[in-house]
Amino acid sequence: MVKDGRKFIAVCGGYPCSAEEAQLAEEVGRRLARLGAALICGGEGGVMEAACKGAQAEGGITIGVLPGDSRRTANPYVLIPIVTGIGSARNIIIIKSAHAVIAIGGGYGTLSEISFALKNNIPVIGLKTWGISRNNQPDNSIILAEDPAAAVDLAIELAVQ
Amino acid sequence: MVKDGRKFIAVCGGYPCSAEEAQLAEEVGRRLARLGAALICGGEGGVMEAACKGAQAEGGITIGVLPGDSRRTANPYVLIPIVTGIGSARNIIIIKSAHAVIAIGGGYGTLSEISFALKNNIPVIGLKTWGISRNNQPDNSIILAEDPAAAVDLAIELAVQ
Amino acid sequence: MVKDGRKFIAVCGGYPCSAEEAQLAEEVGRRLARLGAALICGGEGGVMEAACKGAQAEGGITIGVLPGDSRRTANPYVLIPIVTGIGSARNIIIIKSAHAVIAIGGGYGTLSEISFALKNNIPVIGLKTWGISRNNQPDNSIILAEDPAAAVDLAIELAVQ
Amino acid sequence: MVKDGRKFIAVCGGYPCSAEEAQLAEEVGRRLARLGAALICGGEGGVMEAACKGAQAEGGITIGVLPGDSRRTANPYVLIPIVTGIGSARNIIIIKSAHAVIAIGGGYGTLSEISFALKNNIPVIGLKTWGISRNNQPDNSIILAEDPAAAVDLAIELAVQ
Repeated sequence: MVKDGRKFIAVCGGYPCSAEEAQLAEEVGRRLARLGAALICGGEGGVMEAACKGAQAEGGITIGVLPGDSRRTANPYVLIPIVTGIGSARNIIIIKSAHAVIAIGGGYGTLSEISFALKNNIPVIGLKTWGISRNNQPDNSIILAEDPAAAVDLAIELAVQ
Repeated sequence: MVKDGRKFIAVCGGYPCSAEEAQLAEEVGRRLARLGAALICGGEGGVMEAACKGAQAEGGITIGVLPGDSRRTANPYVLIPIVTGIGSARNIIIIKSAHAVIAIGGGYGTLSEISFALKNNIPVIGLKTWGISRNNQPDNSIILAEDPAAAVDLAIELAVQ
Repeated sequence: MVKDGRKFIAVCGGYPCSAEEAQLAEEVGRRLARLGAALICGGEGGVMEAACKGAQAEGGITIGVLPGDSRRTANPYVLIPIVTGIGSARNIIIIKSAHAVIAIGGGYGTLSEISFALKNNIPVIGLKTWGISRNNQPDNSIILAEDPAAAVDLAIELAVQ
Repeated sequence: MVKDGRKFIAVCGGYPCSAEEAQLAEEVGRRLARLGAALICGGEGGVMEAACKGAQAEGGITIGVLPGDSRRTANPYVLIPIVTGIGSARNIIIIKSAHAVIAIGGGYGTLSEISFALKNNIPVIGLKTWGISRNNQPDNSIILAEDPAAAVDLAIELAVQ
C-alpha cells in the first residue's frame, strides 16, 4: 500500500486559520495525494484539517501526530492518528518524519516547526508564512512558493532522501 | 484506505529476540493484517521486525515509531516510519496510539510499555512475557494468551474505543 | 553550591499514597538530604511530596520534573521545578537524571520508572514496591530494602557514576 | 536554598558561538546570579557554557537540560544536569521552565526556542539574535536589548509569574 519510495511531506500552519489559508492548504493536500505523497501534520484543525481534507478527497494517506492524549482530537480527515501526549514537543516529530515541509501562514508553533526543519536540513517551502533574519541579515532558507502547485512541486523535488 | 473504525494494535517485544518469539510475532502480525487491523510498533528489529514482516505479507499497514533520528533505522517491513528522535520516550507514543497491546517476551523496554498501557487503561495481552506483583500480591492485569491466534482475537475484542 | 560529586537520587512512588508510604518517603528524603544527595522526583503529591518535605526539612535540594505545563502544579517542597509539558514521558527524564532510584509502593507509573532504570543500568532500590518475573522466572534486579535507612545507604553506595 | 520567588531565566544561543557572543553570555550569567536568579539552559557548550561560567563565578545556580543520555555531556559549569535523552525536543522544556528567556545570537535551535517562548507567552529578550516577520509584516515580539545589563534587567522585570 505505501510503496517503497513514497515521500512523506509535512504541512504546517495555523489553527485556526484564515479562509485563504484553508484554501491553499486544501489544494496542497489534493496535489500531494495525486502525486502519491503521504501527508503528515499535527492532526488538528485549521491548515492541518484543510490539508487532510484535500488529501483524503484524492485518496491520499493522512497522518496526524497529535499533541494530546486522545485520538478523538484528530480532525475527521486523519487516517492514521499518532497519539503522543507530549504537547508541542510533538512538533519535532512531524518535522523529523518528513522529507520536506510546506508551511502555510501559521503562528509561533509553525515558526518552531520551520526552525526544526532548517536545523535538520529538511527543505522548507513557504506559502505566505514567516520570514527570518539573523542579526539583521536576511536568512533566505525558507523557499518561497507562489501558489500550491509550485509549493508541492518544490517539496517533491527537494525532498531529502 | 484506512477505513473508519480500523483498530491500531501495538506489538511489543525484544530486540534481539529468540527464534520462538520471532515466530510468534510473525504469526501475530499475519493475523492482525488479515483482520484489517493496523500494526504499530517501535519499528526496529527482533519481535518488531517479525511482526511487521507477517503483517506486510498479508497486505497490512505497519507503523514504526522510531527512537532515533533517521527513517533508515526502520526494519524493511515498516511502511509508515515515524521518526521521533526522542529515544525510549517514544515507547509511550506507541502505547497511546494503540487500542490494545500484544507483548511477546521482551526486556525492560517492553515492561515499560506494559506499564504505560496499564496506566492508561489500554488492554495488554501477553505471550510468554512479564509477570508483575505489587507488594507481594500478584497483579493479573496482563491477560495471558496461549498462542498468537488467541492473542490477536483478544486484542481485537478488548480494543478500547 | 551543588558540589562536584553530588549524587542525584530519584524517589518514585504513588500519588496518592498510603500514610505508611508517605512516612517511608519522608524519612528517605530526610536521610538523602543529610547525606548531601539531591532529590529528583516527579514533583507532584503523594510519595513525591512526602520525600521533598523530608529533604527540605534538612536543607536538601529538591528537583521536580513536572508532567504538565505549569510550575504551579509542583508540590510546595519542590525548590527547582522543571516544567516539561510532555506528560508521562517525563518519567524517563527523572530516571536518566538519577544515579540511583528508590521506589516506594507505587502504581503503573512507578513500574514504568523501574523499567526504564533497569533498562539503563541504573540501580533500583525497592521499599514495598513492585516485583517482576520474566516468562515465569523471577527477576531479582530490584534490590529490596528493609527500611528507609537501608534504602538510602544502598542508593548512595550503588549510585552509578 | 532556592528561595521562594526565585526567578528562573533561560539563556539560549549557539554552540559553537563567536567570542563576542561568549562575552555577552558570560556577562549575562554573572548578572543573573548577582540578582539571585537561577540560570536554565541546554547545558552544552558555546553560549550555554559561557553563561553558566559567568553565573557560577558569582555563586549562582546553573541548570542544564541536556539533549543526550549522559550527564558527562554537560559543560563544567552546570551544577544541576537534567538528562533528558529526547534530543532537540528538550528545547521546549528549557523554555517552559523559564520565567523569561534571553537569546544571544544563535542558530535554528535558538530560533525554535524563541518560537516556543512566544507561543507560551514567555518574554524573549534578544541580544544580536533573530528577527522575524509574518507574511512580510515585522513581528516585534522579541524585545531588543542593547547590552547584557539591559537584557538581564528586562528579563527580571518582565518575568512571567
